[in-house]
Amino acid sequence: MDSSLKVEKPYVVGIDIGGTNTVFGLVDARGTVVDVDKIKTGKYEKAEDYVDAVCTGLEKLIEKNGGKDKVKGIGIGAPNGNYYTGTIEFAPNLPWKGIVPLARLFEERIGIPTALTNDANAAAIGEMTYGAARGMKNFIMITLGTGVGSGIVINGQMVYGCDGFAGELGHVTIRRDGRQCGCGRKGCLEAYCSATGVARSAREKLAQSTEPSLLREIPVDDITSKDVFDAAQKGDKIAKEIFEFTGQLLGEAFVDFIAFCSPEAIILFGGLAHAGDLLFEPIRKTVDANVMPIFKGKCKLLMSELKDADAAVLGASALGWELKELEA
Amino acid sequence: MDSSLKVEKPYVVGIDIGGTNTVFGLVDARGTVVDVDKIKTGKYEKAEDYVDAVCTGLEKLIEKNGGKDKVKGIGIGAPNGNYYTGTIEFAPNLPWKGIVPLARLFEERIGIPTALTNDANAAAIGEMTYGAARGMKNFIMITLGTGVGSGIVINGQMVYGCDGFAGELGHVTIRRDGRQCGCGRKGCLEAYCSATGVARSAREKLAQSTEPSLLREIPVDDITSKDVFDAAQKGDKIAKEIFEFTGQLLGEAFVDFIAFCSPEAIILFGGLAHAGDLLFEPIRKTVDANVMPIFKGKCKLLMSELKDADAAVLGASALGWELKELEA
Repeated sequence: MDSSLKVEKPYVVGIDIGGTNTVFGLVDARGTVVDVDKIKTGKYEKAEDYVDAVCTGLEKLIEKNGGKDKVKGIGIGAPNGNYYTGTIEFAPNLPWKGIVPLARLFEERIGIPTALTNDANAAAIGEMTYGAARGMKNFIMITLGTGVGSGIVINGQMVYGCDGFAGELGHVTIRRDGRQCGCGRKGCLEAYCSATGVARSAREKLAQSTEPSLLREIPVDDITSKDVFDAAQKGDKIAKEIFEFTGQLLGEAFVDFIAFCSPEAIILFGGLAHAGDLLFEPIRKTVDANVMPIFKGKCKLLMSELKDADAAVLGASALGWELKELEA
Repeated sequence: MDSSLKVEKPYVVGIDIGGTNTVFGLVDARGTVVDVDKIKTGKYEKAEDYVDAVCTGLEKLIEKNGGKDKVKGIGIGAPNGNYYTGTIEFAPNLPWKGIVPLARLFEERIGIPTALTNDANAAAIGEMTYGAARGMKNFIMITLGTGVGSGIVINGQMVYGCDGFAGELGHVTIRRDGRQCGCGRKGCLEAYCSATGVARSAREKLAQSTEPSLLREIPVDDITSKDVFDAAQKGDKIAKEIFEFTGQLLGEAFVDFIAFCSPEAIILFGGLAHAGDLLFEPIRKTVDANVMPIFKGKCKLLMSELKDADAAVLGASALGWELKELEA
């Protein structure tokens, strides 16, 4: 029988590289994480040793599930990852300095085709392959975590720009001469609408008034976005105002994003997105009140459909389906 | 001989629909406007009569140059033109109300495949086909005329978005709660950086001080952006400050556009772009001082290479090369 001659490749590997942990897993075509493991990213000073450690772990997963012939490709999501070159470039929270040719190191070590992109782009590809953006040709993924990241899809393709780094929507200016941002500039969306931005809004708001708030029971420097969420859920006025403010700024930014690329949807992902209507309502209100008439009511605001625990690995893995065989 | 059986189609037609004039011309593959004519747009209350008048004129040009078999397609640039549907939708400055299926009307009347897009997108396609963006896969065209328009190219494709109307960069918010814009919203880039915006800046600046200026010799309501340019060229301080301010705001907007799609170039087109260094210098200074470090020095700022007189027809015509034969 001819079909027996064809090697089936039912799996891809997704690797999510974070400053603390690297999570890697085997994923099937339905988006099920079949098997997963992790190592500490910071333990390996040399990129080669790190790649060896990940591959040793991966090989165990792969052997358990039918061997290397079953794996179509490896997708990696990493901070400052460049899809065009397969390199990580000057990532401040990773142990390896300068430009690291990570995709090539993986291919050489394990012999499976490997592609790499930044974490927010990986989330967008994951959403398009397995999540809320299935079938969409134009959408924006906004990741609300420690920072604000984005992945943009236009005409069914990821937007990488001329250099591989496009899609830094966390760093559009939302308040001219506003808050200092970690990127060295001022007034970036990320300085307000990330988890750390929300905590900062809390400290500012508490300092500006003497109004009672559940948040005053927490040492001011320890307040997290989760604390603000918990207080808002209990009806705390200041906490609710903080979400109102955060949603308003996101909405103002989204209005400009819509004028740029008229996406079918903007999809929110990450810890803060779970605030649900506390955040979605002020975003919707601001977008509806400010969007150009021609775009009114056209762009959906959605929550990611990827489970948080799996999302990073899933997103990265989706890159793997597009890969071709390595040349011998 | 086989090659004689193949009908050569060396020309495309470009039609530029403006509120006052409609200009139409025959263009060859090198971007030479071989022949051109025009009619008054406003004379025709019914779209069908208008299409008939344009086609009557076109047929004369086409017959003079070898007949209909030599024409590959017709491209139309029009305000509020929708590429997906070939319709003009609610264009405030055109005589036909509602949604007008213009591409279809042309195809039915003249029997040549026809595509349509808005004027700024047409300019971008023209620049990519014949001008400064030849060979570029990622760039933004900004048209500085009565309004501010834009055409965005990503991964070698025009960005039309989910509805055909993407690329309204004249209506990103550059000053929160700023000047009233013609679109009904406040603080849009267009309210500051269009020709009318520059004239408005002049009136504001003259009212705010008593400093002498050449511009004070002109009745304040008659001042145009051309007057401001002429005064600046003569060294007038207030006029130079107006260009400085206009360039600064464009630069601030470009910084966000770069974070969005990391284009190889931003290309300026239209009357104001001819201000040259008066405008380009403050744009460059603002971009260099504010762009994210990762994008520094990557995005070129260029002047359109299309001649103003031909540009609109050329741009529209470029759409024609992509068209397939009509079905019989």
